[in-house]
Amino acid sequence: MSEALFVDRLIDAIDAKRAPICVGIDPMLDAFPDELKPKDMRDLDACVDAVYSFCTGVLKAVAPIAPVVKFQSAYFERFLWQGVEAYYSLIHEAKQLGLLVIGDVKRGDIGSTSEAYAAAHLAELEFSELDDVATPDAITINPYLGLDAIDPFLQVCRDEGKGVFVLVRTSNPGSKDLQDVRTEAGVTFSEHVATLLQTLAPSRQLMGNKGYSNLGAVVGATQTHTMQSLRQKLPNSIFLLPGYGTQGATADMTKAAFDANGHGAIVSASRSVLYPKRQAGETWQAAVKRAAETMREDLGKAIE
Amino acid sequence: MSEALFVDRLIDAIDAKRAPICVGIDPMLDAFPDELKPKDMRDLDACVDAVYSFCTGVLKAVAPIAPVVKFQSAYFERFLWQGVEAYYSLIHEAKQLGLLVIGDVKRGDIGSTSEAYAAAHLAELEFSELDDVATPDAITINPYLGLDAIDPFLQVCRDEGKGVFVLVRTSNPGSKDLQDVRTEAGVTFSEHVATLLQTLAPSRQLMGNKGYSNLGAVVGATQTHTMQSLRQKLPNSIFLLPGYGTQGATADMTKAAFDANGHGAIVSASRSVLYPKRQAGETWQAAVKRAAETMREDLGKAIE
Repeated sequence: MSEALFVDRLIDAIDAKRAPICVGIDPMLDAFPDELKPKDMRDLDACVDAVYSFCTGVLKAVAPIAPVVKFQSAYFERFLWQGVEAYYSLIHEAKQLGLLVIGDVKRGDIGSTSEAYAAAHLAELEFSELDDVATPDAITINPYLGLDAIDPFLQVCRDEGKGVFVLVRTSNPGSKDLQDVRTEAGVTFSEHVATLLQTLAPSRQLMGNKGYSNLGAVVGATQTHTMQSLRQKLPNSIFLLPGYGTQGATADMTKAAFDANGHGAIVSASRSVLYPKRQAGETWQAAVKRAAETMREDLGKAIE
Repeated sequence: MSEALFVDRLIDAIDAKRAPICVGIDPMLDAFPDELKPKDMRDLDACVDAVYSFCTGVLKAVAPIAPVVKFQSAYFERFLWQGVEAYYSLIHEAKQLGLLVIGDVKRGDIGSTSEAYAAAHLAELEFSELDDVATPDAITINPYLGLDAIDPFLQVCRDEGKGVFVLVRTSNPGSKDLQDVRTEAGVTFSEHVATLLQTLAPSRQLMGNKGYSNLGAVVGATQTHTMQSLRQKLPNSIFLLPGYGTQGATADMTKAAFDANGHGAIVSASRSVLYPKRQAGETWQAAVKRAAETMREDLGKAIE
């Protein structure tokens, strides 16, 4: 392993850009700027071309501002194998622009199957003659199947210094159906998951040199009622906080996720940054950049 | 919707072939017959060619015996976009052979993202000029995010008559870490999920005409301690039972999942059918066919 661990590179990048923010790359054709919308939404080639143009424009616009971007796999899989190729290509492009990349794939399966997912989505690609494509620096994973389903991903973290963010408390309203249910021990199911993850997060091969682990957690920025409790249970995990912006979370609502040095969390927004209202005469890329800058200022103030 | 619901077609196919079995299509290069193994495992084209050859051979061998096959997405994603193209192509091929197809994708995300996954993996493809590819008749989904994450998939079931199998109790040893945890109401987390799903399964748009619903459940065949309880809580859901064979479950262990007519469940095996020991002079396809026949006989006896 030649490079620093993901978690250390992430903290350095947040400090360098003074921005604990992540821009979610969710290419939704209906919301694209008019000049990029494909004429025929049933023309797969045209759709994928539009995805490339849009994402490339977004990556260039936000690279000076945000330390990290999160690619939502679903919006690429939506365009079948061509979309999947775009996913790997655009991740490479993001890395070339100096961005750290999270792949939001939420995978998780029994051990042998998770190994295949880890090889596809997290490990460095081992096929020869594959140019201009890359896997992310970290991915999101789903814990429902238990710790043995997580382990193949952690093995890649140990071997290659990569990162994972395990779903602990998601940002959607329906997450309460399962994640807020109390166990007979009196904790919520999310808290139970957090306690299990803390048995792994501080292990030597996962810990960086700044007090944080390559094993991070997804905690919806909308879930203020449980943020502090989860923070206490997972002192070494970076929190990836989706839900800011369109889903309704504000900068203030994320405070409990950060430590005194402004570390420990990264707030993610997708639609509010990708699809802002344009001002008169403004290009769509300028509007995206402005939205990212506004988010950075907003978050900077809140965590100072 | 011109065709019968997935669940009714599934029950008819099980009856016609007298086989409540599903063959899991898990292409693992290391386990391939020697004559199909690519010379260079780092040559992506050669790997994908081998996957096509192997899967086509398996589909032809098992089509006369099994009513349904389950494609494990991870083993296709493992070969990047080329593997994903193979996944959609081979699903088409399986359907041409008269097989029903389950896509084992275990997706699940917040509502707008689940919509994109449902369009990619469950709905009929809407792009023009896409020949010889297809989506599955049903897919597996992960319930951790809650009912609003499941709804976009159910909408496709309602609109197109397709099916889903929601993870309730998985077959892996580590599933106890989360799914066996008791809630303050005294039920396991799996039972809690089952109770939530039963609020949806019997709804008019999901119910077929044989007492079962397009909303099915994944219950590991290895999980005998909870099979009967889950059966009672989900009387209208077909159980997809992985874990038979290599993972250790026997036909006897699946009995509690079936009703008096031998309906209500389908037992899935992957490695034990795909990679059997060959007898002297036997082709690999003949060995696969024999393994599928053995499984059919075994299950037929157990549920009679």
